Amino acid sequence: MRHALDIRREDDFAAWYQAVISQADLAEDSGVRGCMVIKPWGWGIWERIQRLLDERIKATGHENCYFPLFIPVSYFAKEAEHVEGFAKEMAVVTHHRLKLQDGELVVDPDARLEEPLVVRPTSETVIGQAMSRWVQSWRDLPLLINQWANVVRWEMRTRMFLRTSEFLWQEGHTAHADKADAMAETLKMLEVYREFSETVLAMPVIAGEKPENERFPGADATYSIEAMMQDGKALQAGTSHYLGTTFAQAADIRYQDDQGQQQLCHTTSWGVSTRLIGGVIMTHGDDDGLCVPPAIAPHQIIILPLLRGKEEDAQILAFCDKVRMALVAQDALREPIRVLLDTKGGKPAVKRWSWVRRGAPLIIEVGTRDMEAGQLSILRRDRLWRDDGKPDFFTQDCDAFAAAAGDMLAEMQQGLYDFARMRRDGAIRRDVASMADLAAHFADAEEKPGWVALPWARPTGGALDAIVEQMKGLKITIRNTPLDEPAPEGRCFFTAEPAVETIYVGRAY
Amino acid sequence: MRHALDIRREDDFAAWYQAVISQADLAEDSGVRGCMVIKPWGWGIWERIQRLLDERIKATGHENCYFPLFIPVSYFAKEAEHVEGFAKEMAVVTHHRLKLQDGELVVDPDARLEEPLVVRPTSETVIGQAMSRWVQSWRDLPLLINQWANVVRWEMRTRMFLRTSEFLWQEGHTAHADKADAMAETLKMLEVYREFSETVLAMPVIAGEKPENERFPGADATYSIEAMMQDGKALQAGTSHYLGTTFAQAADIRYQDDQGQQQLCHTTSWGVSTRLIGGVIMTHGDDDGLCVPPAIAPHQIIILPLLRGKEEDAQILAFCDKVRMALVAQDALREPIRVLLDTKGGKPAVKRWSWVRRGAPLIIEVGTRDMEAGQLSILRRDRLWRDDGKPDFFTQDCDAFAAAAGDMLAEMQQGLYDFARMRRDGAIRRDVASMADLAAHFADAEEKPGWVALPWARPTGGALDAIVEQMKGLKITIRNTPLDEPAPEGRCFFTAEPAVETIYVGRAY
Repeated sequence: MRHALDIRREDDFAAWYQAVISQADLAEDSGVRGCMVIKPWGWGIWERIQRLLDERIKATGHENCYFPLFIPVSYFAKEAEHVEGFAKEMAVVTHHRLKLQDGELVVDPDARLEEPLVVRPTSETVIGQAMSRWVQSWRDLPLLINQWANVVRWEMRTRMFLRTSEFLWQEGHTAHADKADAMAETLKMLEVYREFSETVLAMPVIAGEKPENERFPGADATYSIEAMMQDGKALQAGTSHYLGTTFAQAADIRYQDDQGQQQLCHTTSWGVSTRLIGGVIMTHGDDDGLCVPPAIAPHQIIILPLLRGKEEDAQILAFCDKVRMALVAQDALREPIRVLLDTKGGKPAVKRWSWVRRGAPLIIEVGTRDMEAGQLSILRRDRLWRDDGKPDFFTQDCDAFAAAAGDMLAEMQQGLYDFARMRRDGAIRRDVASMADLAAHFADAEEKPGWVALPWARPTGGALDAIVEQMKGLKITIRNTPLDEPAPEGRCFFTAEPAVETIYVGRAY
Repeated sequence: MRHALDIRREDDFAAWYQAVISQADLAEDSGVRGCMVIKPWGWGIWERIQRLLDERIKATGHENCYFPLFIPVSYFAKEAEHVEGFAKEMAVVTHHRLKLQDGELVVDPDARLEEPLVVRPTSETVIGQAMSRWVQSWRDLPLLINQWANVVRWEMRTRMFLRTSEFLWQEGHTAHADKADAMAETLKMLEVYREFSETVLAMPVIAGEKPENERFPGADATYSIEAMMQDGKALQAGTSHYLGTTFAQAADIRYQDDQGQQQLCHTTSWGVSTRLIGGVIMTHGDDDGLCVPPAIAPHQIIILPLLRGKEEDAQILAFCDKVRMALVAQDALREPIRVLLDTKGGKPAVKRWSWVRRGAPLIIEVGTRDMEAGQLSILRRDRLWRDDGKPDFFTQDCDAFAAAAGDMLAEMQQGLYDFARMRRDGAIRRDVASMADLAAHFADAEEKPGWVALPWARPTGGALDAIVEQMKGLKITIRNTPLDEPAPEGRCFFTAEPAVETIYVGRAY
């Protein structure tokens, strides 16, 4: 079978990933180091992600705000552990003017800032300052804030969507009266992320706690959702942090309790980013390009009129528009169906394959014969090929299709999830009993390492460091401790102490 | 009458403006020079503006993208006139790392960037680079792109929403085959802005062309919408530029025409920003705070239960929720009505006045007696006071109000526009016949200068410069030349040549 991409996943997964991004028109290099241009189809997917996640963030009582892009260096200095974690990779604004010198544009040395400004890598410090103004009494708590923003972390090795110097995200920041309330918030938002990933992105994830060595700089506990990509590597797709009183102490976020006593707040933060699009690509892409889950497809159905530059073209277009109107009047996944009647010039076959590569869920072609018979030729992106290697078009009566389209899209959404879930579950081993076996597994499974579940006694400090070091030799890391699995029988794989939980280990992006 | 703000417009308009921003919970100083924190109510207004304008931008065929925050200095060097206009006020990233030195965080001198990066003040240059990749043939045209983004212009004197170093905006960028098509685009988007301002923001504007001396750096023609604030000063609320082939030349945006010849594209750009919120405040604010046009109110109706910490509270809350449900099932301005049942603690009167200051269009109070009678006490933000100086609550049966609320909100929206339009039209003088009169007008009208319409022969170059200089003495500028007014009779106010158009002159923000 000849596929729509010129590179296959099994031949070179990394090159395939770049090919999808380019050939599905998602993004491209910008010419600016570490920054990408997100193109309309990629941006449309991000807009859908934003809208559906924003609804969930608001439904759980959070309000959106906007905080400054720049953070004075002194804000960072207040929280030592936090700055340790970020100081190495921030863009620093030192001047506020350029000037022409001998016909060349140069930084004007007279315009040096008194205090350098950091382009936000995350906003804990600056939002902490605001919280200390906004929180006075226990009545002001909980304070539940979210922001959609661009952030910058200077990355040496970048990869589109997965790790770029500038990226887009939402960052939630909340303040609470006590640990119990803040922990409940941390876990609530982790669950929002899990449900969002699985329902909206059709991307199965494990929600769990990161080990101590993988915590966010300054956090008391960090939780993540971890997705498995088709190459068997893990993608950390979202994190939720319980920050204890560390940031409250640094920014002086205090409240008067109902007894009149001053107390420190407990804070949280949580975020997901444009990295999710990378996750969608590596979960649902195939050798024909991307397959976009209907919930986040900018257009769910593409109507392609087969025009021939003849008189009857006008009739075909009128017929297609009638079909479009009938479809947009229907709902899929509780929203009106999103339909594009693509009337751009170009050869029909070229246009068809460009929509296949972009991963539009349903592609409809309408020629003269279809029109005359009142029927449509439909191609499902998730069932592209017949056994004979031809595209699996099927024919349906116009009205019947309009009535069925919503269910068909919902079924595709579920099918994508089920398939990814099956693949992931099949790539988790639970039978590795010794270090030698573990080493053998990751040595053999260079291609698709998958994850290994191990019983775990939750070692800390030096004991944990030694284990992390051992795993580094195998090029693996602890992904997380799943929240919804019962404590395993037996003893810790590493320390032989009684196990209290399971961990997943594997290679990661 | 005791008003809800402690400062009146007529006593100190500038201080009143700051008081509204603070007391309507719109925004506050961030502690970071020239940057503000946009708070939930202010951000909610911006989200409404974004959504309703984005719909219009998409409906006119534009697609959203995202381009890098950073622009290498060399991109600017390619367009000399453009850099002239911006070089003085840009944030420059020169380093990518901080380090700890003697316990202090400092810029790491080893992490100097080879080429400094400018934080985008606008994206013509970087989008031009992308366009030169994307446009090959006449079939690729027009290329219609928009971006929602934050931009930075280093401002010495800042004022919240009106002029901040970082601000949020949308910037449209388009490429066309010829001047006619690009000019049509420039004027189409100007009209989108006019319709949006008047319909959605209820803010009347004059759409017209800026004089040559006020053009965007590098543009062949600049158009604007100009609104008149309550203090009689002008606010440039949006601009649309025809850029000719200047940026196409700098970035090499060329296409092959249908004869096989290489041609330069003609480009446009157009933008509106968070400045619009400043315009809304100074158009619709009064001595009781803000009055938000229903189309952009995050909540259009606030339900305030009058709770007394007694058993019947539960009944009142249940009743209020029934009212809420009945209201959200109704539409206003073709969208479901947005209702907040405000159950936060605090004294009812304090809560009422905080919503008055924020400018929620309708405030409903529900006490035991109301509940028992199945009725509501309603306060309209646009008709706040009775003649006796008391809040003008009126009583309406529950069901009748639910049925009428949509129309009431639409009527408020129209009423706000009509009132602002009447005020503006009354503050435009068309009878000023001599320089002496003009000088006298602006000397006398220190408080509310308003605008003066003058016949204009469209002088350019040195002649225009001399006039601009003369006007500087009166602290006024040319706002624009209205597109929809017939050419005036008679002679140019300044040059005595035959007039070809009208100009508005006035003081401006």
